Amino acid sequence: MDLTGFRAALGDIPIEDHPKLVQQKSRDHYWYSPILKAQLDQVTADLVVMPRSVEDVVTVLAAAYKFDVPITPRGAGTGNYGQAMPLAGGAMLDLKNMDKVLEIKPDRVRAEAGAIMVKMDEETKAAVGAELRFHPSTYRMATIGGFIAGGSGGIGSVRWGGLRNLGNILGLKIVTCEETPRVLDIAGADIMKLAHAYGTNGIIVEAEMPLAPAYDWVEVVVGFDEFLDSCRYAEALAGQDGILLKEISPVAAPVPYDYFGRYRDFLRQDQSVVLIMVAPNSVDALTLFTSHHGGEILHRSDVNDLDAAGRKLPPIYEFTWNHTTLRGLKIDSTITYLQTQYPTLEHLEKIHRMLGDEMPMHIEMTRFDGRIVFSGLPIVRYTGEERLEEIIRLHEENGCLVFNPHRYTLEEGGMKQTDRAQLAFKKEADPKGLLNPGKMIAWDDPDFDFDSGRVWLFAGLAEQARGAA
Amino acid sequence: MDLTGFRAALGDIPIEDHPKLVQQKSRDHYWYSPILKAQLDQVTADLVVMPRSVEDVVTVLAAAYKFDVPITPRGAGTGNYGQAMPLAGGAMLDLKNMDKVLEIKPDRVRAEAGAIMVKMDEETKAAVGAELRFHPSTYRMATIGGFIAGGSGGIGSVRWGGLRNLGNILGLKIVTCEETPRVLDIAGADIMKLAHAYGTNGIIVEAEMPLAPAYDWVEVVVGFDEFLDSCRYAEALAGQDGILLKEISPVAAPVPYDYFGRYRDFLRQDQSVVLIMVAPNSVDALTLFTSHHGGEILHRSDVNDLDAAGRKLPPIYEFTWNHTTLRGLKIDSTITYLQTQYPTLEHLEKIHRMLGDEMPMHIEMTRFDGRIVFSGLPIVRYTGEERLEEIIRLHEENGCLVFNPHRYTLEEGGMKQTDRAQLAFKKEADPKGLLNPGKMIAWDDPDFDFDSGRVWLFAGLAEQARGAA
Ligand SMILES: Cc1cc2nc3c(=O)[nH]c(=O)nc-3n(C[C@H](O)[C@H](O)[C@H](O)COP(=O)(O)OP(=O)(O)OC[C@H]3O[C@@H](n4cnc5c(N)ncnc54)[C@H](O)[C@@H]3O)c2cc1C
Ligand SMILES: Cc1cc2nc3c(=O)[nH]c(=O)nc-3n(C[C@H](O)[C@H](O)[C@H](O)COP(=O)(O)OP(=O)(O)OC[C@H]3O[C@@H](n4cnc5c(N)ncnc54)[C@H](O)[C@@H]3O)c2cc1C
Repeated sequence: MDLTGFRAALGDIPIEDHPKLVQQKSRDHYWYSPILKAQLDQVTADLVVMPRSVEDVVTVLAAAYKFDVPITPRGAGTGNYGQAMPLAGGAMLDLKNMDKVLEIKPDRVRAEAGAIMVKMDEETKAAVGAELRFHPSTYRMATIGGFIAGGSGGIGSVRWGGLRNLGNILGLKIVTCEETPRVLDIAGADIMKLAHAYGTNGIIVEAEMPLAPAYDWVEVVVGFDEFLDSCRYAEALAGQDGILLKEISPVAAPVPYDYFGRYRDFLRQDQSVVLIMVAPNSVDALTLFTSHHGGEILHRSDVNDLDAAGRKLPPIYEFTWNHTTLRGLKIDSTITYLQTQYPTLEHLEKIHRMLGDEMPMHIEMTRFDGRIVFSGLPIVRYTGEERLEEIIRLHEENGCLVFNPHRYTLEEGGMKQTDRAQLAFKKEADPKGLLNPGKMIAWDDPDFDFDSGRVWLFAGLAEQARGAA
Repeated sequence: MDLTGFRAALGDIPIEDHPKLVQQKSRDHYWYSPILKAQLDQVTADLVVMPRSVEDVVTVLAAAYKFDVPITPRGAGTGNYGQAMPLAGGAMLDLKNMDKVLEIKPDRVRAEAGAIMVKMDEETKAAVGAELRFHPSTYRMATIGGFIAGGSGGIGSVRWGGLRNLGNILGLKIVTCEETPRVLDIAGADIMKLAHAYGTNGIIVEAEMPLAPAYDWVEVVVGFDEFLDSCRYAEALAGQDGILLKEISPVAAPVPYDYFGRYRDFLRQDQSVVLIMVAPNSVDALTLFTSHHGGEILHRSDVNDLDAAGRKLPPIYEFTWNHTTLRGLKIDSTITYLQTQYPTLEHLEKIHRMLGDEMPMHIEMTRFDGRIVFSGLPIVRYTGEERLEEIIRLHEENGCLVFNPHRYTLEEGGMKQTDRAQLAFKKEADPKGLLNPGKMIAWDDPDFDFDSGRVWLFAGLAEQARGAA
């Protein structure tokens, strides 16, 4: 790595090399995992480069290739698995200066990779009354490029599935890391090579995403005495085809009362809740359905949106997905979490009874190839790595999936299948292996076993063509 | 029944009493069933009354009550089960003069009961870029009141389920048939008392319906050599959460070639097809998915919308739902049809192999309480009532549902559960039993068995509250 040559080749492209600031930009939310915290705490890049255009990105990647400088792309750094951390040093490629919405049509939007999702929605709502189909709970900070390269789904996935599904990303523009970097328009099956690949096979500079109609979503909190009743209700609600919902999340007691400070006024500690976002035209049906199912409506944002102190409540989605964990960590820094999937209520019940308050349950109802499943983001009262591994084993032995958020490689995280097509594409797009090095085992290990037989969230391309996804 | 007194009490409300014209208005599409054709051919009303306003409807129903005149409401008369046929004579109440759209909001529309659905959509599309969530294939003729009182679902039900689902009807205004008719606003759980009740418990004068975003839906025909492959594809496609679809209908060879004349140019006789409506932002993903599944794209309306003679093709939805049967009847008047539901592909396969070309399959993929099921509208090569009953029995013995379209009562049709709450409501709204008499067995038979244990499309109210729907 020749950093002097690299810097000289960058011309007037903005950089930052103050060690403190570089270290800040070299981190994501890896520290949600005590295991990653110990492993990655010392990781830092040598400098941060902040391109302003596709041309700038081409210049940076040509220089990286010439001077053997590792490049780790960064959106907002809200990822959880050390995904955006520069294991081999070199340069962070911070996309924050490329944040423009480029084109809005009634059913789609095209934006630069560094565009913040909530800003994109503000623009598309104003222009065509539409919004992104789904977004992570980090909506107010995260970039569209970072979401595609590092995320999976979120608020809206109960209706639209996730980034893993055909149709949820319409097109990408990427830059390769070669002697003469190419700017490629990616469409069709190739899109899935880039999704959730941590930027290991190309820098995303633009993304085109489908839009859904925007609503003034009504936020509702429904209370239940028994957590399993809240799950039964949530599953049945997700199956109500006539009730338009954007989010359904059952959270077991005592998490809501203990961690959701701003919601305390209307909660009891022994109450489990379901957090809901519903379209205005479906509120009446939701209310009726809830009364049929014995749920107690504790809060409705269309009736009241203030806390007891008269302050506006935060958006409900900032209590869901990994924000549930975040709110927990603010109160109790010893907890951590898992990412799981329970195919049926029986699976969920079994694990819940087995682990009880050692793993307070937090579920996100999502669509998975047309079925409604229980995606889990349970809180784990952490007592050590060994016990965590045991909890994972308990899940797997009982037919539940785990996507391990305590691993920084694509393969060990378990979400993204690396197959031969994927690896071949990386060889073309990044022949020197400079893009986010250390994150793809198949690249580093010539003996990598492609046919592990496990279930992946983002299936490999061959798998998809066989109709698995 | 005192018709002279009744007519005198109507004032200037338009009527028609020419026997030929009255008979025309006393019929629906009952003749799709050879059984109903024989039973109902002689049925006719004494006159047709055509109210222009809610006040007119109140006047008519007060007069009907006073002079004991049966009243059978009629929208466009496109129902299939003799639903709108006046078994006891009296007056047809033709809603055609009450066809105005009253209010449009971005997420809902309110219209008079006689409004034609395609006209409603024209207005809401122009005003707010939205359309009804789903509509019957008789969209260009049928009224919203007739759909609610007599229909079940249609194009869009693959996404939104049917009229049976909470949230798909927002509110109704009805008029009761009492000494002093009441005008009632119906909301919440009560809506389901009126849905698919054939107007036996109140005349719908207004309906409020939720809207979905309108798209220039692209029509696609996909060909398969094997019918079961087309069903496998259709089921998997319906489970693609990221591909926005409005219609998926597999139709077995030789139906498409033999009956879909205008589509012949691009069909082979031995080909089964899947008829699809897809949003523009999902066409690419559909194309990719189709190639993964070995389907052949035979037609795309965004590439070509003319037949070989240069004429614009009819909308694809007029080949689906009961239009498939209609197109068959135009070629071969000896056929008829059934209404079925196959819970899984295995059920469907079993019946298909058993009956083969005696019952050429036609499936509509629909959402049913969150699951994707195969709703059947198979063609039946009719050889007599006995064999038809046998075919129905074969279905039921093999775990498949039949909603018998050869019966004119609510209960025997099998779609609508009459329960005690429903009957109690009829006693209030129509104490003399003048509204569409002869269609509700529970009204006529004091020994009616409420607890038959069968599965109903429109579950009774008690059933719904128990969470069955
Ligand atoms: C509290 C909390 C809640 C969360 N909730 C969700 C959730 O609901 N759903 C969800 O999916 N995730 C969630 N996450 C994870 C994360 O916030 C999202 O995936 C987010 O979209 C990442 O965007 P970012 O801009 O911060 O990406 P970063 O963290 O900056 O990057 C993510 C990955 O993508 C790569 N990358 C970034 N930009 C590019 C680019 N332009 N080209 C190529 N590669 C690039 C990075 O190298 C990294 O590997 C959550 C995280 C936290 C901390
Ligand atoms: C070719 C063909 C295709 C079809 N496809 C479908 C389909 O896809 N989906 C589907 O659900 N149905 C379908 N049908 C049945 C029918 O077309 C629809 O249900 C349609 O919506 C009925 O509307 P209409 O105005 O013609 O009602 P009508 O036939 O006039 O009436 C239907 C029933 O409602 C009652 N009624 C009418 N207006 C009122 C009112 N204002 N108040 C109270 N009761 C009233 C009538 O007495 C009758 O019992 C199809 C029929 C045909 C012939």
